[in-house]
Amino acid sequence: MYELGVVYRNINRTDRATTDALAALGSATVHEAMGRVGLLKPYMRPIYAGAQVSGTAVTVLLHPGDNWMLHVAAEQIQPGDIVVAAITADCTDGYFGDLLATSFQARGARALVIDAGVRDVRTLTEMRFPVWSKAISSKGCIKATLGSVNIPVVCAGMWVTPGDVIVADDDGVVCVPRERAPETLKAAQAREANEGAKREKLASGVLGLDMYKMREPLAQAGLRYID
Amino acid sequence: MYELGVVYRNINRTDRATTDALAALGSATVHEAMGRVGLLKPYMRPIYAGAQVSGTAVTVLLHPGDNWMLHVAAEQIQPGDIVVAAITADCTDGYFGDLLATSFQARGARALVIDAGVRDVRTLTEMRFPVWSKAISSKGCIKATLGSVNIPVVCAGMWVTPGDVIVADDDGVVCVPRERAPETLKAAQAREANEGAKREKLASGVLGLDMYKMREPLAQAGLRYID
Amino acid sequence: MYELGVVYRNINRTDRATTDALAALGSATVHEAMGRVGLLKPYMRPIYAGAQVSGTAVTVLLHPGDNWMLHVAAEQIQPGDIVVAAITADCTDGYFGDLLATSFQARGARALVIDAGVRDVRTLTEMRFPVWSKAISSKGCIKATLGSVNIPVVCAGMWVTPGDVIVADDDGVVCVPRERAPETLKAAQAREANEGAKREKLASGVLGLDMYKMREPLAQAGLRYID
Amino acid sequence: MYELGVVYRNINRTDRATTDALAALGSATVHEAMGRVGLLKPYMRPIYAGAQVSGTAVTVLLHPGDNWMLHVAAEQIQPGDIVVAAITADCTDGYFGDLLATSFQARGARALVIDAGVRDVRTLTEMRFPVWSKAISSKGCIKATLGSVNIPVVCAGMWVTPGDVIVADDDGVVCVPRERAPETLKAAQAREANEGAKREKLASGVLGLDMYKMREPLAQAGLRYID
Amino acid sequence: MYELGVVYRNINRTDRATTDALAALGSATVHEAMGRVGLLKPYMRPIYAGAQVSGTAVTVLLHPGDNWMLHVAAEQIQPGDIVVAAITADCTDGYFGDLLATSFQARGARALVIDAGVRDVRTLTEMRFPVWSKAISSKGCIKATLGSVNIPVVCAGMWVTPGDVIVADDDGVVCVPRERAPETLKAAQAREANEGAKREKLASGVLGLDMYKMREPLAQAGLRYID
Amino acid sequence: MYELGVVYRNINRTDRATTDALAALGSATVHEAMGRVGLLKPYMRPIYAGAQVSGTAVTVLLHPGDNWMLHVAAEQIQPGDIVVAAITADCTDGYFGDLLATSFQARGARALVIDAGVRDVRTLTEMRFPVWSKAISSKGCIKATLGSVNIPVVCAGMWVTPGDVIVADDDGVVCVPRERAPETLKAAQAREANEGAKREKLASGVLGLDMYKMREPLAQAGLRYID
Repeated sequence: MYELGVVYRNINRTDRATTDALAALGSATVHEAMGRVGLLKPYMRPIYAGAQVSGTAVTVLLHPGDNWMLHVAAEQIQPGDIVVAAITADCTDGYFGDLLATSFQARGARALVIDAGVRDVRTLTEMRFPVWSKAISSKGCIKATLGSVNIPVVCAGMWVTPGDVIVADDDGVVCVPRERAPETLKAAQAREANEGAKREKLASGVLGLDMYKMREPLAQAGLRYID
Repeated sequence: MYELGVVYRNINRTDRATTDALAALGSATVHEAMGRVGLLKPYMRPIYAGAQVSGTAVTVLLHPGDNWMLHVAAEQIQPGDIVVAAITADCTDGYFGDLLATSFQARGARALVIDAGVRDVRTLTEMRFPVWSKAISSKGCIKATLGSVNIPVVCAGMWVTPGDVIVADDDGVVCVPRERAPETLKAAQAREANEGAKREKLASGVLGLDMYKMREPLAQAGLRYID
Repeated sequence: MYELGVVYRNINRTDRATTDALAALGSATVHEAMGRVGLLKPYMRPIYAGAQVSGTAVTVLLHPGDNWMLHVAAEQIQPGDIVVAAITADCTDGYFGDLLATSFQARGARALVIDAGVRDVRTLTEMRFPVWSKAISSKGCIKATLGSVNIPVVCAGMWVTPGDVIVADDDGVVCVPRERAPETLKAAQAREANEGAKREKLASGVLGLDMYKMREPLAQAGLRYID
Repeated sequence: MYELGVVYRNINRTDRATTDALAALGSATVHEAMGRVGLLKPYMRPIYAGAQVSGTAVTVLLHPGDNWMLHVAAEQIQPGDIVVAAITADCTDGYFGDLLATSFQARGARALVIDAGVRDVRTLTEMRFPVWSKAISSKGCIKATLGSVNIPVVCAGMWVTPGDVIVADDDGVVCVPRERAPETLKAAQAREANEGAKREKLASGVLGLDMYKMREPLAQAGLRYID
Repeated sequence: MYELGVVYRNINRTDRATTDALAALGSATVHEAMGRVGLLKPYMRPIYAGAQVSGTAVTVLLHPGDNWMLHVAAEQIQPGDIVVAAITADCTDGYFGDLLATSFQARGARALVIDAGVRDVRTLTEMRFPVWSKAISSKGCIKATLGSVNIPVVCAGMWVTPGDVIVADDDGVVCVPRERAPETLKAAQAREANEGAKREKLASGVLGLDMYKMREPLAQAGLRYID
Repeated sequence: MYELGVVYRNINRTDRATTDALAALGSATVHEAMGRVGLLKPYMRPIYAGAQVSGTAVTVLLHPGDNWMLHVAAEQIQPGDIVVAAITADCTDGYFGDLLATSFQARGARALVIDAGVRDVRTLTEMRFPVWSKAISSKGCIKATLGSVNIPVVCAGMWVTPGDVIVADDDGVVCVPRERAPETLKAAQAREANEGAKREKLASGVLGLDMYKMREPLAQAGLRYID
């Protein structure tokens, strides 16, 4: 169902301020703020710990073992983008290494999210170019078959449209559709707002049972305490 | 990124003639005719061998361990539909059994494609109600949380829009977008047309090397024969 | 935490009538009747379709690649038992073949449930000796290390105590603790009792939405229909 | 086979001195000291390297995607406990984050062992609250269904009874039943006692073949050296 | 480490009589006769039940998603061969369907063993052309990159040299090196010879414990019976 | 097909200079230099980040759960070797810990590559003895069954002959056959030589599309740009 062999040059990126503000909230809070949807599958893991980013999605569809279109995608990157790469069949090959990372970084990309493998992870870590991937593999790719750039893709089980916001950190990767970004930001900030107060209470020994007033609904559901 | 808690009652189904004609061509030929895209992941397997169907997709988004929305989906089924069920997180529970199958069959559904588990597979087999699923499991579901019906979903790695054509057989499941269905049917029929002649030739001992004129490109690619 | 090198000769088997009556109800209904617990993981699959059995558990703990204790277990089998075999670490070797099956069958065993591999599956199928396993493998075993017979074991994620009832069919395997067997049988029969009526209604076109009176709770949960 | 909807308030914890002494020995030595049993499956991994703890088990049984009972469990924690969480079906959702960790830590919990996912792992790492889990995932949970607290559970393939000792480090997680804890401690300390001497010998170039007197049994088993 | 782009036309096939005699013994007996080595990993499954074959290996090395070399391999097939296909990286694509099967069958091939996917399984079943594979998938292949034919390959974890004997049935696939085929046949026949007598004894109720004289070694290993 | 119970004392090691020079090039470049073959499967991961080594292979074949032959292998180690351990069936047990590492290190081994589990990973990390494995597990091994040392083995899907060069780093593990080592070194150095220039160009903003002159072949393949 994918359109093959096309590159969309003009995409509607989520506005920069909204996109950037989502990074600090993190993937877990943003995903909650959307009603617990939007997450890529949890097999997507960062190549190093501690990176926390947001950016606008430039998408690319690749074939197994073929990274030709990543070079095509590089040209479409604008500062603040995150490249989201999907593959037409399961593959763990190393599609991306330090040279492509140098190019992506020079174009202003903040990260790569790829439903396949990467390599040169030590150099990528030194460059602080974060990648979320499903594998790490030395296996290189050929450059033989056309995919597409900036079409909607399914990456790690999630639908990503070019211009959507990607939020990624140690907990995973979430996609916020462009049209839902402003409301999601607001909802996420609201969640975040009273986290500090909650944390203090819990740290002082107050139980979630009391703080969230769970005792009554638990009793109504039939919970029995046995001494 | 999914819209939750909604049921779209009016969907644009692919026309019946095109939809039905695709069944006989099978998932492999249809997938080739689309340029080798559109397949659900190969972990989707039929509960019994030999079923080969096509139908228009009625989609449903479910939560892990919760099959409430399958009852909602039942009402939206029209004769000739195939229900395509996606889950918001990986789950192998048995969402569907003989009672729901009885209801779906009464409504005219031809099959279920579900990215989770099913149960009562012996009875489903006797009823000849085919299911493609990723698991078989006795584990039942609760009915507690809203999903949606007839929104676009990602099922087993593939994007399915309500009204698309689903073609499923022993080889797997393919989704043909509504707008590409006519051209896909034509291309698939063209592929199929000369399969018989090819098969006869190959059966008589002619090699694919000669029939497809591969010897020269192989030699050009550098293939060496060693005695 | 397992006791190694022991064989308990006297176990409290669930009474025969209760045990036998559970077979006809099937693993899905029995699992529901227990409150949706008791299932072994769904990777446990029958080696052939159509078997549906119940029996009292004789348990055996084995080491990876070592089937010595299956011979010890054979002696503890009484007619109507099902042998439940757990392994101290993940293993797919073929622990059980036609010779052991002949012996088990001669002792009156009804089935084997093993969290590992089996072999000679064609012969086992001809003998109609059903096995639920996680793999099929030609790989044979050594006979070198002691395990135990008739101690409680974890098999495919479920705790099984000797004498518990095992119910297994095409949908999976469920374990009913001895002390809960009578109430479970009653609850399962109650569930089963009105299945026929429900099926007829659904077959006539009545929707589950109406039969189960789901429309109001769905509306209260906020479900919206969009034309 | 699990009892649902109950909280046992009084459990027999292994005595503190024995429990605490086991931490320094590590999961590998303790597992050997028990006769090579007691390990949770190796897919259980720490969220950060270097933590090595022991504690008394407070158990909790949860449903897929539902973390309600973790709040109930928090109240049952005593200083020196480790919470062990089992799920009734496979699930990778993020059941536990920084808020619950704050509460657990305030109650004196030393760690969480959960057969599912966690989130906020960067904050958990900063807090030095160790978690052993099978996944990391941003996906949040609902609070809808009762499980139980302090019943025996199967966690990652191992049976854990409330009050048992949990030993966890970079190599994995082992469960020592309360009644076997004293003998296990003794056996583990005995193993540990002569490790230093062995290490020195091996470091000096002495071969295990000689130190363990393996040459003769190897020859008897038929080992042949070929020049 | 593979040699790429070559086709060895002359291979040393195991003699026909030895090769053919191994089929009847089955993969489990043959694997035992070799000292419990030689098995391909148990994820290799037949596309239909009941086939039991042996043949001489014609090997082919393929790239992910590219089946070009299967056409080259077809020409090297002699009656009685089994084609063994390895891939340079994990792949589940459908490399082989009814047209190639027609060609292979016309050349005298008895089966295909492929560490990837196949398609047209319903037609292959009707043709009685058995395939052992790790997946079934509609996904087709391109014809772009050279592999090799009749070089030694690793298929599903086992080293296969052209001309070796392949024995495959419902239990799995075993490879017998050419030089070990005669002794393996003899050892397998010896094992088989007294299976009938053993089976009769076991069927009459004699226990393996007594037939194999296991009671003493079990007692010496410390087995305790508890009443 | 493995020869069991033998130890080859004399193996042809790749010459030291060639072997050592390959370390700095890394697994990805070396694998490319061989024509994109030779890689072990990407599930082989280092126990700590940052190690990058090469060495000559000393191979060992082990049985599941049995590490006896690692002690036999220790004696065959010469300074500059890397031990490559294969198992006759899938196993995640912890075959190797700090004592064996002490011994291996004393003998001059540079690393262990094992298609199974390891333990004591914290101590191994402190010792800076790198291991590439498929699992980390506390589970210990018995010493009961003969395997072999210095026979060719399949490790993580790759054929390794004693004396071959192993190159391992954060990206994975690659095996360079002895006879291909000199040409591989040369090819890898050639690749490496102009990487610096390429990186500078890309860092300055030049696109790979231009640097590699891809625009024309992409256009010829039919790539369309849409504004």
